[in-house]
Amino acid sequence: MATIYEKLQEMRIELPVPAAPVAAFVPTVRTGNLLFVSGHIAKRNGKSWAGQLGAGISTDEGRQAARSAAIDLLATLHHELGELTRVRRIVKLVCFVSSAPQFTEQHLVANGASEFLQEVFGPGGLHARSAVGVAQLPLGSCVEIEIVAEIR
Amino acid sequence: MATIYEKLQEMRIELPVPAAPVAAFVPTVRTGNLLFVSGHIAKRNGKSWAGQLGAGISTDEGRQAARSAAIDLLATLHHELGELTRVRRIVKLVCFVSSAPQFTEQHLVANGASEFLQEVFGPGGLHARSAVGVAQLPLGSCVEIEIVAEIR
Amino acid sequence: MATIYEKLQEMRIELPVPAAPVAAFVPTVRTGNLLFVSGHIAKRNGKSWAGQLGAGISTDEGRQAARSAAIDLLATLHHELGELTRVRRIVKLVCFVSSAPQFTEQHLVANGASEFLQEVFGPGGLHARSAVGVAQLPLGSCVEIEIVAEIR
Repeated sequence: MATIYEKLQEMRIELPVPAAPVAAFVPTVRTGNLLFVSGHIAKRNGKSWAGQLGAGISTDEGRQAARSAAIDLLATLHHELGELTRVRRIVKLVCFVSSAPQFTEQHLVANGASEFLQEVFGPGGLHARSAVGVAQLPLGSCVEIEIVAEIR
Repeated sequence: MATIYEKLQEMRIELPVPAAPVAAFVPTVRTGNLLFVSGHIAKRNGKSWAGQLGAGISTDEGRQAARSAAIDLLATLHHELGELTRVRRIVKLVCFVSSAPQFTEQHLVANGASEFLQEVFGPGGLHARSAVGVAQLPLGSCVEIEIVAEIR
Repeated sequence: MATIYEKLQEMRIELPVPAAPVAAFVPTVRTGNLLFVSGHIAKRNGKSWAGQLGAGISTDEGRQAARSAAIDLLATLHHELGELTRVRRIVKLVCFVSSAPQFTEQHLVANGASEFLQEVFGPGGLHARSAVGVAQLPLGSCVEIEIVAEIR
């Protein structure tokens, strides 16, 4: 059976080196078997993937942005845990979608992250989820995603 | 003492059968004694309870929508746990309220869910809570609610 | 080494008496070693610190509002736990920032709370975090903050 890293290689995904942690908070905090992971904004070419759904960013581009944020979340998990097999379960995901007033497909945008996590982790990637449309996000990013994971 | 199901009967509430889970995520994930429940949008007649607070939906209608989402959350808990007495405590609730720029009564909308949970579970229904006004929600729903519950 | 209370005194911060809990929910719920704390809106002179970032409230004023909400969260922790040394770790913080469409510095606003918690608790104050821009908040407050803490 393919390991997570082999799957990533097949998917031609190279995990980025996480951005240096900002002083005021940290990428993850572990408590018991739970790992709380900070919100990750979607990035493209190392910079904020700026824009708003329903105002220049299509649902399909939003999905790609959500998938990209999930890859960065995975990179953070890898960096913090050393080994992705230590992730027993993705427990919870919240997808904040920067949304113009008429945009109502936040769930389809969030699928970009949810499907990616399921592809990588299999049943352990199936999570509880909320997807909501916010007014704006840091650096004008179109998507921000936070997760809670259960660790072995 | 009336059981939870007797209380629901007195309140003339029939728990709906939860909608078939969407492939990309699941209604609940349990980790230790905690059950994380996905965001449930408010529905009416089986479809999204569409609209925005401060723009066509009144605070009182919003309360009803929040109560309706809480009934659906209860139905999900019943379906996942088999028995609602397995819920020891509703720990946390977040109420996302689709809000026009001038609407500032998100807390009153959220009360529709909070009061319902307290009515059903008694002291075990008293939870920590956040209520916020978002720009939009999936399928244009006026309210989305997620909870964390502690299970026996 | 200065205790938390001595640090607060040096910072000339007097913890307010938390507002009487609203009936429909409670300030905190403990489950295992985790304490979930309800969203606290920023207040000034005992009333909602009303306004919106990018529309009358500057980033610097937003930082002050976030710091003020964090002081109120600390007062709630003190009131619920009796002793702030019982806080082992601030695990997670979500900062909801009421944001005009063009405002993209939610992370800088959130720093007002994050830096304060680090100042008070030291390494135990370093948390995972999400900062997002919402459409509106209860009573028109410019900032609302919720936290999860680990308790000894």
